[in-house]
Amino acid sequence: MISHKKVELLNLGDELLLGLKSNEHLVYLGRMLKRHGLTLIHNEIIRDNIEEIQRSFQQSWERADIVITTGGLGSTVDDNTREALAEALGLKLIFDPEAEKAITKLFEKVRSPIPESLVKQCYKLEGSETLPNRSNFGTAPGIFLKHQDKILIMLPGPTSELRPMFEQEVLPRLKAEGVLEPEEMVLQLRTTGVGETRIEERVKPALEQFPDIDLAFCAHLGIVDVRLSLKHASVPQKTLLEAGEACREALGEDFFTFGNDSLAKVVLDDLKAAGKTLAIAESCTGGLLSNEFTDLPGASQVFSGSIIAYSNDAKVELLHIPEAILEQHGAVSEETALAMATGVAECFSADYALSSTGFAGPEGGTEKDPVGTVYLGFHSPEGAYSRKVVFPGDRLIVKERAVYTALDWIRRKLKHYKSADISTSIPGA
Amino acid sequence: MISHKKVELLNLGDELLLGLKSNEHLVYLGRMLKRHGLTLIHNEIIRDNIEEIQRSFQQSWERADIVITTGGLGSTVDDNTREALAEALGLKLIFDPEAEKAITKLFEKVRSPIPESLVKQCYKLEGSETLPNRSNFGTAPGIFLKHQDKILIMLPGPTSELRPMFEQEVLPRLKAEGVLEPEEMVLQLRTTGVGETRIEERVKPALEQFPDIDLAFCAHLGIVDVRLSLKHASVPQKTLLEAGEACREALGEDFFTFGNDSLAKVVLDDLKAAGKTLAIAESCTGGLLSNEFTDLPGASQVFSGSIIAYSNDAKVELLHIPEAILEQHGAVSEETALAMATGVAECFSADYALSSTGFAGPEGGTEKDPVGTVYLGFHSPEGAYSRKVVFPGDRLIVKERAVYTALDWIRRKLKHYKSADISTSIPGA
Repeated sequence: MISHKKVELLNLGDELLLGLKSNEHLVYLGRMLKRHGLTLIHNEIIRDNIEEIQRSFQQSWERADIVITTGGLGSTVDDNTREALAEALGLKLIFDPEAEKAITKLFEKVRSPIPESLVKQCYKLEGSETLPNRSNFGTAPGIFLKHQDKILIMLPGPTSELRPMFEQEVLPRLKAEGVLEPEEMVLQLRTTGVGETRIEERVKPALEQFPDIDLAFCAHLGIVDVRLSLKHASVPQKTLLEAGEACREALGEDFFTFGNDSLAKVVLDDLKAAGKTLAIAESCTGGLLSNEFTDLPGASQVFSGSIIAYSNDAKVELLHIPEAILEQHGAVSEETALAMATGVAECFSADYALSSTGFAGPEGGTEKDPVGTVYLGFHSPEGAYSRKVVFPGDRLIVKERAVYTALDWIRRKLKHYKSADISTSIPGA
Repeated sequence: MISHKKVELLNLGDELLLGLKSNEHLVYLGRMLKRHGLTLIHNEIIRDNIEEIQRSFQQSWERADIVITTGGLGSTVDDNTREALAEALGLKLIFDPEAEKAITKLFEKVRSPIPESLVKQCYKLEGSETLPNRSNFGTAPGIFLKHQDKILIMLPGPTSELRPMFEQEVLPRLKAEGVLEPEEMVLQLRTTGVGETRIEERVKPALEQFPDIDLAFCAHLGIVDVRLSLKHASVPQKTLLEAGEACREALGEDFFTFGNDSLAKVVLDDLKAAGKTLAIAESCTGGLLSNEFTDLPGASQVFSGSIIAYSNDAKVELLHIPEAILEQHGAVSEETALAMATGVAECFSADYALSSTGFAGPEGGTEKDPVGTVYLGFHSPEGAYSRKVVFPGDRLIVKERAVYTALDWIRRKLKHYKSADISTSIPGA
């Protein structure tokens, strides 16, 4: 337990309850808080209804030390978070000339008068600070209130407004209040290829000699994260680093990074350090594997490009796969995966290559290779390899698991790990 | 208001509060319920703590007609939803021989004895039904309880167990209880290219002649959904269809489908109906655009393949872009986007092609074309076109918006809409 401050998150807005988009604020704020030693203990999504907002807020305010709200600060009639919370806390709403100035400035740029409806955004809870909205498109300021020994943080709903405000305005204020723990009190190790139970079996004995370290796990999408934290600020930081080393040793080849980097990032960094390039040939993963790399800033130094070859014609003409291989072994086979990897490496003059071909479903598959069967190919200066994997799940899950397995495979191959040649399966969904 | 039943969702599990994965159960269940006329009015994420579970559950049980819980039904010490809710409702846990039989059968397959820890999964709340877990990997059964004129549904946490159980076991039971409205009482129209406010301005007058129709909006990722529903079951269904037609007319070219299909699905269907094929050349979108198509079952009938050409060399060698174009106009230009589209159409002998090249950031960009600038290309039997778009936001947002804009563009082009040639911008994040 590195911080005893309890944080609760209230997301306001009907749209999050309609199943049309996931609650990305929860993921973002949960991660940012955790990184600074604060733990989210509760989250609610509440409709745009004053009574419901007040009821949930009052309960949160009673339980938590810090309450964060998102949404409902805009200019439409649905936006009533400011009013609801002021009433719940028995505080007045007061006009803030600074907020008005900021909005005026924004509208000067586009040379139009401030719409009447924006005036309510210039009000803040008495005793609170206005958090300026520094995005290029949003006008709604946030609110930071210290009250009754607690902290209330109100953030606007749009992601592009919420994130810069949280990082530039909220984090420094929380730091000044002394509620953030330094980042160095938490250490995360990421592992892949093995389930949570087996990771726990290996890490626990390694930590027996570290009574001041707290241990937690989190499994998601083929990855199990191991989080170590110092129980008290008085424990020297080197204890955390030593415990991290002990865990890393116990985890062996299944450990892939300290921190938050993705598998693709770790592979990209390894290739970058070696001055090598990577090309990709995708069939069943259809762009998802390439996208893991192109999501990373600076990918172009390593990632040469991809060919997504869905049809046999494309496999022959663009990837130069001998027609005889497709005829004898079929498009979904070890031989084709191998030829795809080698072919795409040649196309892009790349040092390394990955390939995928399989039956993602729902149609297709054979008796020998039912839906869920994927062949992966790997080309390297040392040789070319292919392997077969079978995943349960629907089309999107099969694609996702094939991508994670390919990334973990090249990671182990690049490190020359023995486990690179052992067929591993991705742990639970 | 088509159903007055209030549904609340409680997600149990610490891991959803750590910011490591988004709450996909909320999206899935929200959408499934909405499709059957039920509205989620509240969602909470609760830690694995018996008191907190009971406190939140008791409040939900008081407010709602149907409470759904996810998680906490497994075999570890953290899994205590069953026990917590039995106590909260004052109901006994009773042994269910059927549940034991199902688990025994699963373990017979792998020829090992049932672990002691699984025995607690064989207990159900008195008066409840056990929902069999039909996934291939999970053992935890669900629970369906009618009690005090309300319904409690307890589902296991893993996605691959929850979804089949909800569809095969829960939906039929809810239908039998008469709480589901027939799907025909809701009609959704999807629009793109215009913000929510302008969509509302166009739809509202069209609905004035339909007093029995309720109207709601939901904006997400460049799309605004318009949802029409019948106020009472006694209103004839043809009213809904007529209102839908009136809205469709008012929405004009910005309407793209009835129902839930994605933009890529609509484009795919149009091409399939015309017997045409599509190829894609991606630079800055890096696989994300292709992935939109390959996520769709049966994509291979239309989607020929893609070339992701990050480097200039790849653009010249694989897409056959004249070097003079790259030298004169640069890799990020209208001319290059155009040449990429035409080049990739030739590579795959495809009828249509899309292309993207731009500065997704954070590095790169020029004074004329700063980070966020993307050139899109479109090749068709009628000619080739390119256009420039500029998006605010970080690397991932720029990629996403470029993809949605390209999809909307080809949609309008295929329909020969006038608006296909007008530069439109994607509404709010």
